[in-house]
Amino acid sequence: MNETEISTLGEFGLIDHLTENISLRNDSTRHGVGDDCAVLHYGDRETLVTTDLLLEGIHFDLSYVPLKHLGYKAVVVNLSDIYAMNGTPRQITVSLGISKRFTLEHIEQLYAGMRIACEEYGVDIVGGDTSASVTGLIISITCLGDAKRDEIVYRNGARDTDLVCVSGDLGAAYMGLQLLERERVASAGMKDFQPDFAGREYIIERQLKPEARRDVLDELHQLGIKPTAMMDVSDGLSSELLHICRNSKVGCRIYEERIPIDYQTAIMAEELNMNLVTAAMNGGEDYELLFTVPLTDHEKVAQMKTARLIGHITKPELGAYLITRDNAELEIRAQGWNAFDKQ
Amino acid sequence: MNETEISTLGEFGLIDHLTENISLRNDSTRHGVGDDCAVLHYGDRETLVTTDLLLEGIHFDLSYVPLKHLGYKAVVVNLSDIYAMNGTPRQITVSLGISKRFTLEHIEQLYAGMRIACEEYGVDIVGGDTSASVTGLIISITCLGDAKRDEIVYRNGARDTDLVCVSGDLGAAYMGLQLLERERVASAGMKDFQPDFAGREYIIERQLKPEARRDVLDELHQLGIKPTAMMDVSDGLSSELLHICRNSKVGCRIYEERIPIDYQTAIMAEELNMNLVTAAMNGGEDYELLFTVPLTDHEKVAQMKTARLIGHITKPELGAYLITRDNAELEIRAQGWNAFDKQ
Repeated sequence: MNETEISTLGEFGLIDHLTENISLRNDSTRHGVGDDCAVLHYGDRETLVTTDLLLEGIHFDLSYVPLKHLGYKAVVVNLSDIYAMNGTPRQITVSLGISKRFTLEHIEQLYAGMRIACEEYGVDIVGGDTSASVTGLIISITCLGDAKRDEIVYRNGARDTDLVCVSGDLGAAYMGLQLLERERVASAGMKDFQPDFAGREYIIERQLKPEARRDVLDELHQLGIKPTAMMDVSDGLSSELLHICRNSKVGCRIYEERIPIDYQTAIMAEELNMNLVTAAMNGGEDYELLFTVPLTDHEKVAQMKTARLIGHITKPELGAYLITRDNAELEIRAQGWNAFDKQ
Repeated sequence: MNETEISTLGEFGLIDHLTENISLRNDSTRHGVGDDCAVLHYGDRETLVTTDLLLEGIHFDLSYVPLKHLGYKAVVVNLSDIYAMNGTPRQITVSLGISKRFTLEHIEQLYAGMRIACEEYGVDIVGGDTSASVTGLIISITCLGDAKRDEIVYRNGARDTDLVCVSGDLGAAYMGLQLLERERVASAGMKDFQPDFAGREYIIERQLKPEARRDVLDELHQLGIKPTAMMDVSDGLSSELLHICRNSKVGCRIYEERIPIDYQTAIMAEELNMNLVTAAMNGGEDYELLFTVPLTDHEKVAQMKTARLIGHITKPELGAYLITRDNAELEIRAQGWNAFDKQ
């Protein structure tokens, strides 16, 4: 790989280089990169905005995360927030802080991953900011999207007796991270060490290249279901359930036996001697959709291929509980990933 | 001052604390902080989006920048980009990366400065992200605004014979930075050193607490002037003139004697034995508006209190030149502040 120092291009040269030949896919993108602002037009639809800051050493470790995957994931986690409102992502802005140890080729890889995610999900890159950083890589992405006013699903609409559903499976990204971390430690100091991830591809992919669940919205739409509340699972199911309960002023009952877990996740938890349910409830980075639907949609939800029923909403005074396989009631607490403990 | 470790609140506690009692000022803000996304509605107006990343040690030095001023400035530099499109800023999202040396009280000061700027300019804080950082303070702000489609002013509309104008005065923020830097070095190791900035308040304020030039747009509007091209002066007049020339495919002639410079800037340059015109042309961080108007608006522009005529647009083959007081022609080059050289 060539090694071109970024200082040879300068800030404007770098931006020009990264954003050349960017094709615009959305009618709502009137003017993209290259002026003081991007110009968008959403007409009578509502504009959705979300933003995420990803920092090296806190949110990612470049010793096992390829830059291309990192770029892809950095975009996808933002798109996931737009889908979680039942909207369609349309544009992103990308701000990068880049330390001296990164070459132009590194940043090209990162940007390539971002472009692939944008292509995959039909999103336009419309602006950003690029700067030197004293230490490490900083990625700040803001995503804009749209939705019809009456289609937007907030966190505050869950009502007593609603059904609680979650897409895909949980805990896999967390177990993938544990596996990557174990291999990193095991391979420390070994040159060209190639870990063998055979049979663990799924949990590795869930960690390194997650997808946003646009397909879940498609299925909900096809079945004529509009969730009463929805959010994406980024900090762990426990944490997100409590957000919905707090915002909707309700309680919930979730059944351990209903929590979807992939067999690779289960095998890895056993191998590492970790509690599987804890991984699924608190692992985070699943980017699945957690949503509630009226009890009357029970039959429709039962048909869903992308999501399953895991419990129901209760009156607020009943609290938020996990019902275990042996019928014990465990209070759900937010043990989600807290970046401020990690310093 | 109390010292509360941020880890005692956690990420969600910190966000709740910082965003409580946020009042929303704009009709276009349908739903602010507290869900996966903010929800905005611009109707038949265009949405403008801009973003800026500010990094400790690159863009600011906390040894002489108070956190409250930093918060104010971080917002204002984004608003300036919206005004530079002839739009009205409406909403911001704020992402912060915070290292362990910052207490809750520090972040409250930073946020207080942001809130004051939002109040001053009628802008809503609608979302963001807060995270630990391994080193230093990271501030990423995205600003949204709106404009009627036919009111937006891009960088690419300048035409041969147009007049070139700039608001306020130039070079003051740069000279303020030189003064602050000199005092920082002089006071190194001295406890409770209080530098005397008497008579230099203006250049210090231009560096620490710049304003966005909403008033210039108001005056343009009152006089019935619509610029053909416009941008804000963040990297220095030279750099911005070349952006307009490149985007509009034109050249320009700028007259040294017309460049507006405050007397405090001039005195400071002399004291520090620096070239005054270089400071004005290349200093940056002025956040003034640079714009072009048709020649037929000459009389209107001459009446302006907030801006003055500094030159004119030419055919592209004539290049971009500064005409000095002794009638020499100096080619304008971008010597603007390049963060990538500073590592």
